This record gives sequence, C-alpha cells and structure tokens, in this order.
Amino acid sequence: MLAAVASPWGAIAAGLLALLGAAYLFSFVRRQDPGEEGMVAIAAAIREGAVAFLRQEYRTLAVFVAAVAILLLVVSRWSPALPPATTVAFLAGAVASTLAGYLGMQAATTANVRTTQAARRGMAAALQVAFSGGAIMGLCVVGLGTLGLGLMVALFGRTADPASLQVINGFGLGASSIALFARVGGGIFTKAADVGADLVGKVEARIPEDDPRNPAVIADNVGDNVGDVAGMGADLFESYASSIIATMAIGANLVAQGAPAAMVWFPLGVAAVGVVASLLAVAFVRRGGEQPQRALRYGTFGAGLLTLAGTYGLAVTLLPEDGIGLRLFVAVTAGLVAGIVVGLLTEYYTSADYSPVRHIAEASVTGTATNIMTGLAVGMLSTAWPVILLGAAIWLAYAAAGIFGVAIAAVGMLATTGMTVAVDAYGPVADNAGGIAEMAHLGPDVRRVTDTLDAVGNTTAAVAKGFAIGSAALTALALFSAYATAARIERIDLLEPRVIVGALIGGMLPFLFSAMAMQAVGRAASQMIQEVRRQFREIPGLREGQAKPDYAAAVRISTAAALREMVSPGLLAVGAPLAVGVGLGKAALGGLLAGATVTGVLVAIMMANAGGAWDNAKKHIEAGHHGGKGTDAHAAAVVGDTVGDPFKDTAGPALNILIKLMGIVALVAAPLLGTGVL
Amino acid sequence: MLAAVASPWGAIAAGLLALLGAAYLFSFVRRQDPGEEGMVAIAAAIREGAVAFLRQEYRTLAVFVAAVAILLLVVSRWSPALPPATTVAFLAGAVASTLAGYLGMQAATTANVRTTQAARRGMAAALQVAFSGGAIMGLCVVGLGTLGLGLMVALFGRTADPASLQVINGFGLGASSIALFARVGGGIFTKAADVGADLVGKVEARIPEDDPRNPAVIADNVGDNVGDVAGMGADLFESYASSIIATMAIGANLVAQGAPAAMVWFPLGVAAVGVVASLLAVAFVRRGGEQPQRALRYGTFGAGLLTLAGTYGLAVTLLPEDGIGLRLFVAVTAGLVAGIVVGLLTEYYTSADYSPVRHIAEASVTGTATNIMTGLAVGMLSTAWPVILLGAAIWLAYAAAGIFGVAIAAVGMLATTGMTVAVDAYGPVADNAGGIAEMAHLGPDVRRVTDTLDAVGNTTAAVAKGFAIGSAALTALALFSAYATAARIERIDLLEPRVIVGALIGGMLPFLFSAMAMQAVGRAASQMIQEVRRQFREIPGLREGQAKPDYAAAVRISTAAALREMVSPGLLAVGAPLAVGVGLGKAALGGLLAGATVTGVLVAIMMANAGGAWDNAKKHIEAGHHGGKGTDAHAAAVVGDTVGDPFKDTAGPALNILIKLMGIVALVAAPLLGTGVL
Repeated sequence: MLAAVASPWGAIAAGLLALLGAAYLFSFVRRQDPGEEGMVAIAAAIREGAVAFLRQEYRTLAVFVAAVAILLLVVSRWSPALPPATTVAFLAGAVASTLAGYLGMQAATTANVRTTQAARRGMAAALQVAFSGGAIMGLCVVGLGTLGLGLMVALFGRTADPASLQVINGFGLGASSIALFARVGGGIFTKAADVGADLVGKVEARIPEDDPRNPAVIADNVGDNVGDVAGMGADLFESYASSIIATMAIGANLVAQGAPAAMVWFPLGVAAVGVVASLLAVAFVRRGGEQPQRALRYGTFGAGLLTLAGTYGLAVTLLPEDGIGLRLFVAVTAGLVAGIVVGLLTEYYTSADYSPVRHIAEASVTGTATNIMTGLAVGMLSTAWPVILLGAAIWLAYAAAGIFGVAIAAVGMLATTGMTVAVDAYGPVADNAGGIAEMAHLGPDVRRVTDTLDAVGNTTAAVAKGFAIGSAALTALALFSAYATAARIERIDLLEPRVIVGALIGGMLPFLFSAMAMQAVGRAASQMIQEVRRQFREIPGLREGQAKPDYAAAVRISTAAALREMVSPGLLAVGAPLAVGVGLGKAALGGLLAGATVTGVLVAIMMANAGGAWDNAKKHIEAGHHGGKGTDAHAAAVVGDTVGDPFKDTAGPALNILIKLMGIVALVAAPLLGTGVL
Repeated sequence: MLAAVASPWGAIAAGLLALLGAAYLFSFVRRQDPGEEGMVAIAAAIREGAVAFLRQEYRTLAVFVAAVAILLLVVSRWSPALPPATTVAFLAGAVASTLAGYLGMQAATTANVRTTQAARRGMAAALQVAFSGGAIMGLCVVGLGTLGLGLMVALFGRTADPASLQVINGFGLGASSIALFARVGGGIFTKAADVGADLVGKVEARIPEDDPRNPAVIADNVGDNVGDVAGMGADLFESYASSIIATMAIGANLVAQGAPAAMVWFPLGVAAVGVVASLLAVAFVRRGGEQPQRALRYGTFGAGLLTLAGTYGLAVTLLPEDGIGLRLFVAVTAGLVAGIVVGLLTEYYTSADYSPVRHIAEASVTGTATNIMTGLAVGMLSTAWPVILLGAAIWLAYAAAGIFGVAIAAVGMLATTGMTVAVDAYGPVADNAGGIAEMAHLGPDVRRVTDTLDAVGNTTAAVAKGFAIGSAALTALALFSAYATAARIERIDLLEPRVIVGALIGGMLPFLFSAMAMQAVGRAASQMIQEVRRQFREIPGLREGQAKPDYAAAVRISTAAALREMVSPGLLAVGAPLAVGVGLGKAALGGLLAGATVTGVLVAIMMANAGGAWDNAKKHIEAGHHGGKGTDAHAAAVVGDTVGDPFKDTAGPALNILIKLMGIVALVAAPLLGTGVL
C-alpha cells in the first residue's frame, strides 16, 4: 500500500484529495453571510479589480506561453534531445499554475467580506472564515502540483528510461513562466497602488488609510490579493513542482546506474504525505478559536511533524536496502527543519517583539538617515544565520544521501507547502477584511477583531517570505545539480576562469534584476500618483465624500504598468542563461547558476527582512513608542517603510523566481547545449 | 639590461627611485609658504589630530602584529610547511605599509595649508602644491612596495625552488593586516567625525560647514586624511603587493614544470616599468596649470600608455619563446585597460554630468523615500558593466596566457598605482585646503580656487574607488588561484556540496562585514554627537565664537571608537577562512574565497557608486537645480548623502580589504591545511 503512495497514482490521488478539500472549503466560505449591501458592493469592487487584473495578465501570458510552446515544438522537431511531449508538459504546468492562482484569488476575494461579517460574531468565527479562504489557495497549489506532475509522469515517464522523465521538466518551465509574471507583475501592481494610495491619500489629501474617497483604495486592496495570494502561490507552486522534478531527474540517473527504482518515486511519495499532513493541519487551524497566532503556529509545526512521521514510514518500507530509506529520511528532516527555522529567524528579525526592529524604531528618533542605515544593516546582518542554517542542511543532507539527498531535502522543506501557503494567503484575506470594515464604517469591535487577525497575518507573511526564499535556494541548488546531470558535465570547476566569469555575471544578475524591479515600481507609482491627484482635482465633491472616485481607472493603471514593466526582467531571466550557455559553454552556465543562487538568496533575505523590519518599526512607533504618530520619529519610520515596501514585496520575492527560472531554463536547454542546436 | 629590470634588483632600484622622487616632492612642499599664523595654527591642529590617531592606531597594531608574528613563529617551529622567514617577511610588509601611511599623512597634512596659501597666487600654483602632496603618498606606496618585495625576494627567494618564494606571502599578510586597520578603522573614524560635525553643527547649531566653532571640525578634516589618504593608500598597497606575490607564486609553479624562469620575475619587471611611468606622469601633472581636471586625466592615461609601451619591450625581449611575451603583454593590457574603464564607469554613475545622478536629484523632489530608492537602484544597476568588463578582462587574459595571465592582468591593472594613489590622495589635500581657507576666513578668490580643486578631487576620488574595487577583485582572484596551487587542490568543483556551502558562507561574509561596519559608524557617530552637544552646552561663549572648542576631545572619541570597532570585523576576516578551511576542508575554503569575491565585488561597487551618486545629487541640487538649498528636495538629498557616506567611505571600501585579506590568510595557511597542524 505504501508503495502505491510513492507512485504517479499516489500523487494523483493526493492531488485529487487536496482539490476535494479545497472545494469543500470553497463551498463553506460561499455559504457564509457577506453582510450588508454596502460591504457587498465594496467586496465586489475588489473582486472585479482582481479579476480584471488576472484577465489582462492572462491575455499577455497567453501570447508568451504560445510563443514558448511553438519554440519548444520547433526545437523538438530539429533535435531528438528535446522530446516533443515537453511542449504538452509545458502547457500543463502553465495551466496548473494559472488555475491555482485564479482559484486562490476567487477564494480570497470571496472570503474577505465574509470575514468582516464573521468578525461581528467574534474572533473564532472570523478566523475560521479567513483561514478557510487562505487554505483554498494552499490546497489548490499542492493539489494541482501533485495531480499535474502525477499525470505527466503517468503519461510520459517510464522508470526504465531516465530520459523519458525529461518530459516533465517542461511542467516546471510552465510553472516558472507563470510564476515570473505573477510574482514580478503582482509585486509591481501592489506597490504602485500602495504607494499611490498612501502618498496622495494619507499625505496630501490627509484622509485615513482605506478611506473610500481615495481613488486608489480598491487598487490597493486588489494588490494585496494579487501580490500575497496569487504571487506567493505561484512562487511556491514553482518551488514545489521544480524541487520534485529536479529530484526525480537526479534519481532517474541513479536508477540507471543501479540504484533501487523506488528512488525515482520517493519524491512523489513525500509530496503525497505532505498533502495529507497539510489537510489535517488546515482542519486543525480552522478550529483555532480565540488564539489565531497559536493555532497557526501549532498547525505549522503539526504539519511538519506529521510529514516527518509519514516520510519515515514510507522511507523505511520502500527503501530498506542498505539503510537508504533511513538516510533519505535524515535528508528530508534536514530540509524540513531548516525551512521552519529559517521562517522563525525571519520572524525574529522582523517582529517588534525582538531587538532588531526595536533598534530601527530607536534609530528613527535621530532621523530618517539613521532609520535607513539601521534598517539596511539589520537586513544585511539577517543573512548570516539563514545562510549558515541552509549550509548545515545541505551538508547534512549530502552526508546522508549524496546529491540526491540535497535535492530531496528541498522536497522535504516544501512538503508542507499546502499549509504554508494557507497561512500566508490568510494574511491578505484578514487585511482586506479590515479594509472593508473601515470603508463600510463598521464599529470598533469589528476593527479590533480584524486588526488582530491582520497583525497575526503580517507575522505569518514574514515567516512565509523566509520560507519561500529558503525553499527557492534549495530548489535552485537541486535544479543546478539536475542541470549538471542533464548537460553531462563532470564538474564545474571554479579554477577554470570561464566558471568564475559565469559566477561573476550570475552573481550580478540579482542586483540588476532587483534594480529593474525597483525602478519599475517607481515609474508605476508615479503614474498612480498622477492619476489619484487628477481625480481629486477633476471630480467635484470627491474630497468631501459627495462623489465616488473612479476606482477602475486606478486598477487599470496598475495593471497596465505591471504588465509593461514585466517584460525586460523576464527577458533577462530567460535570455541570460541561454546567452552564457551558448557563448561561454556549459560550465560557465553552471557558474552562472551558482553565482546567481548565492547572491540571489542573500539579496532576497536582506530585502525581505529589511522591508519587514522597517514596516514593523513603523507600527511599533504607531503603537505609541518613541512619541507615537505625528512625531519626527514616526515620519522617519514612514520613509523607511516606504523604501522597504518594494524591497519586501517586489524586488526581494522576484529574486526567488529569477534563480529558479534560470535553473529550469538551463535544465530544459541542457541536452541541446553544444549539439549545434544551441 | 632589460633582464635586470625584471629581477629583485630592478624592483629595488625602481623602489629607491620612487622614494627619491617622494623625498624631492616632500622637500618641495616643505619649502612652500604655509601662510599666516592663524592658518598655521589650524593646520597644526589637523596634523596633530592625524598623528595622534596614527600613534594610537600603531599602538593597537603593534600588539596585533606581535601576536601574529609569534603565532607564525610557533607554527613554523612545528611545521616545515611554513618557512620561519615568513615571520620576517610579515614584519617587513607591516612596517612598509605603516611607513607608507605615515609618510603619506605627513605629506598631506603639510601640503594642505600650503595649498591654501598657494591658492592666493592662482590655480596653477595651488594644483602644483596639492598634487605634490598627494603624489608623495603614491610614490611611497609603490616605492616601499617594490623595494620591500625586491628585498624579500633577494634575501629569501631562489628561482630554482618555488617553495622558497612562499616566504614572501608573509609580506602580503603584513600589508593586509595594516590595510584592515587603516581602511576599516580609518573609515569609521572619518564618518563618525563627519556625521557628528554635520548633524550637530549644521543642523542643530546652524553654523556653516568647516566653521571653527564646531568642536568636531578638526576631527572631520583629520578624517579626510585618515580615510582617503592613509586608508586608500594601504588598500592599494595591499593590492599592489598581493597581486605581485600571487603572480610570482603561480609563476614559480609553472617554472617548476618547465616554463622559462623569467616568468617569475616578469611581475617585478612590470611593476618597475609602472613606477617609472608613474614618476613621469606625476612630473607632468604637477605642471598642469589652469586645468586640473584635464591634467589629471591626461596624466592617468599617459601613465597607462607608458606602462604598456615599457611592458611590451620587456615582454618580447625577456620571453621571446613561443610568443609567451606577446601573450603576457595582451594579459597586462587587458588588466590595465579594464582598470581605467571601470574607473571611468564609476565616474559615469557618480557624476552630476550624467543621467544616473540627475535621476536621483529629480527623485528627491517627490521625497526622501524616492531619493533613497532611486539611489539604491542606481547602485545596483551600476554593478552590471564593471562586472561584465572584469569578466571580459579575465577571459581575455586567460585565453592569452592561462591562469598566469589572469594574475598578471591584476599586476598590469595595478602597475600605475603610483599615479592612481597620487590622484586620489590629492583630493583630501584640496579638501583640507578649502577647510583651512574657510576656518581662517580667507577671501572668496581663494575659496574659488580651492573649491575647483576640491570638486575635481571628488571626481578623482570616485574613479579611484572604482579602480580600487576592480583591482581588489583581480587581486583576490589571483590570490585564489595561488591558494589552490599552494594547497595542491586539483579542482574546486561547485557540484560538491562542500564547495557550495563554502560559497554560500563566503558570499554572506561581505553582507555581515558591511553591516558590522555600518553599525560601528552609527555607534561612533552617536558618541560624537553627544560630545559635540556637550561642548556647546558646557563651554560658555562657544556658539558666539568667544571661546575655543576642545578639538582634541573629538579626535580622541573618533580614534577610540575606530580602534574598538575594528576588532570584530578583523576577527571575522581572519577567523572565517581558517574556520571553514579546518572545518569543511580545502575545497570548501576555495568556495568561500570565490563566493566572497563575487558578492564582495558586487556589494562594494553598489555601495561606492550609490554613495557617490547620492553625494553628487545633493551637490547638484545645491548648485541650484530643483529649487536649490532649503527646499524639501534638498532635505531629501541630504538624507541620501548621509546614508551614502558610510556606504562609500566605510563599508564599501572595507570589502576590498576583506576579500584580499581572506585570500592571503588562505594562501599562508594553505600548506598547513590537512597536515594536522591546521
């Protein structure tokens, strides 16, 4: 029976189970009371904005996906090294990722107003609705991931022939392409709206946050969903799929050299176990009652422990020979524990309960410059422990089970993705719920509940960011190893200057990519600022609340800017590895991937933690410390928060995509390099 | 005759020649008129402060140097792999670097007031004095470098035995130790004083810059000398010595495998040629007349061209076999040209004449947050071309002459160090001259001359920073190759997880190191702020100009803070490579060096260029653009400049030292790793 779990069929079954769970939660959420007419209208505006963004994004995406599909078909006509079915897998990966994002957004924008209404009944009811809304995204990610991968393997893979598994690389490429658009585009959308809403609304027009008179307020709320729900979901969907694909690729090669065949299926088994564990954890948290923070934390730990228990049983039953199973269990544990601890470290560096954020708040008293410097220093300092921890996990996993161990550690870290995404996507639902309460002028009791949920959501979002970076790092390394196997390179020797040159260029790409993302936010935000100013100027009675702003216009501007600004970073991510691979050779491309992974992880951690710390330093001051709102210290902290926003929500997360996408492009292109086709 | 140039004796002769040139310039500077009594008194205070700092620094250094020397002696007693003479070379390197710093500071603090006085006679006279003052440092660096290395080789090296050359690694270690203290300590000193003087003086007490009533004003002027003269000089002294040492180490290995013996001496020959070229260029610039910018630029290009011409003659005469000479000439050219172009790129990103700085100035109009974001984005963007250029130079040098080619490219880049340091050290002399003119209440004519010299100095300082980073990168790579040779490792394979773990940890170190440096500046500056406030509070009549502030107290605070704050970064730089080498092995240490070099170069470029760009964006606004001084845009630009200060003058430059010092520690430790001693 356990052998069936670790098979394409086990993965398909787990995937269907997760999707059933998601369907159940969706029907539960829809049955909830959406509240009065005014609330429903606001929620409808947010949902319409989100759907409008997605539709527009999908239109752009369709062109991109079609172009890549045709390219893959043409190349597979030319070269036997690229199986034609890769195109099918590519389309499947793209569709699965798109579907997960679409369903997750629908769920989140259905749950937000119902959470507001439930908040009238108290914390427990509100948590149940909000978390159910987030969990739908989590279950869709892992459900569509395991179902899709299982189907691809069942259709195209044959254990006896490692090359046949190559087809599923296309699934990863599809997932990565969507992730690029969802993460980078979503990040630009959300920050353009946020900065535009804050700068003109709060600073110039002097109206409170989430005030319905602000033309960008709906775009801002849409942005929360677009960025933290669809963007984070696509990011982790990519990590999830790619880590399994890379591990299977390495496993297939080992099997061809005589290792037990079950090694190829083991990653699917770990994923299936993780799906079941996540489902149980989700059920537990929904009944979390009055203490959302504790419920979320226990749920996360519980999902991890259940996964470890299941993996242990699976490993020792499936691979008893020479203690292989036990050694793989050690590797999975290393990855899973590292993922959770990296997440907790993120909390340490970004929560106002600990000294880093308090230092930033203190530094705000002496001015903006000291706030910025302290925040940057905290971000840079915060790279040390996560990197040492990742290094230790890699080391342990390798000592236990070689390169396959490193790859399976990534799968282990991501096994509980269902729960992680649920916890993360719950945040914007709670945030939206608070926004709707504000816009619909509900009482302070409701705000108190939604504020508590929102505060918990901010912490969990920070933890999820740390987790996303850690898993992206391990996934990128797994892809790197899989690339080397596929390209048949024996070594990537740093003593060869071409590898050093590759590493230097690769190391530079995250800097260039971040700079492009930050400049894109700047341009998009300035368009948004002009639009909001224009509406305040041209719509009579808007400031006095006697006329309605044109919310849709603001959404359109964010959408158009996001889609336009995605193009150059996207071309960079796809073009750079191909250019280096063709121009300087396979080993140099290996150097590029390693260099990009090292600096990508570091810059991503720095940006995510600096951004989170600045955000909470501001909130700490707003809570009344160092003089509270209206002081110079608060003004300084607001500047830090504004600088940190594109750090943590646009540039930083986009780096996760960059390093994985370059890895998967290299993996797909590997068999073609040096064959004359590339 | 040419064969004699490329020998220890040629190096000794070139060194003596450079020192003679320095002595001549020193006597010229001393003969100049120091001006009236008031000016002499101010200059004396600056010189006393600088000397006090150096004395204090040397006392700390002496303890450190003695400890390392004893450690080296003990280890060489234990293990035959470390020759006992290494200790002698270590002490020689430390003494040479110290001496260069001491003489350079004496010269700069003698020339500053004489430049002010000469400015009364016009631009040409002032340029001659200021540049002579800077050139003394430049000539001392290359003079003591070639003399010291030549002596060490003559005393301890035998061509027939590559291991005998190992002794001179100690010279590099000595130079690196001093550089760490001079660069990191100097960087903390200068920024603590600068921030303290600006924040309390300009903002709180509302007195102009360089006002004699400001208690930190002397410390601020001392800081210019400590940071840009002694710090930059020690940095380039280290690069200069280490690149030659690494190239000779690689060359000795090739000679042992049958390459012509002249290859070992070739780096000394290139250095000797560069010394002569620098001397001629210095003589040319001193007669630069009314156009300092043009004189400095032509001088730099001229020194490069002369070096190339001399190297060509040397190469084809000395190594005619199989076109080796010609190929080495290509490698030297690649390095030298890359160095100059990286410097010019720095100018592009940090000068108000080009769009990056103007974008930052524009972004200041919409507030502090946009100023900061744009500055960070410019810094990150600015990494792209220098890295591609360095990659191209490495590639070309390798294609021409293998690993030896990469190393000799570093020597080529650094051949004109005499001129580069002269151009750089001239900046603080001009800056000081302006400060003295202000404090002594001289007329606007004098200020106009010193302001022009100062503005030119700011540009040249930016170029020198780019050059210092580029040369540190190539030197670090040369040390990396030399380490691999000395440790007898065949390859450093990124597919081995221990190498990846090493690269991750190595990549993280520049982030940690920068964060420590920035926090150190923050702590030191806040002490300085308190001291300046205390003096304004407790010294009656100070604000009204009726009482003199206690300048020495401010200098003491900067000094103590700098020396205290240097300890942990220093331990990190020395301890991390040893810990990884012992704990994870030789290959992991190789990964660490590569990872640290990649991220170190990137972060250093980002910080140097962002800092320079913020500085000049502020000056651009002060020149009357976007409303000029007193506007919100100016206030935003001031914050950017304050954030950029520790970036460009403390953390960024310190990374040059970090990557070289770790390389030289690894090189010295290499023969011991895995022998049971380490």
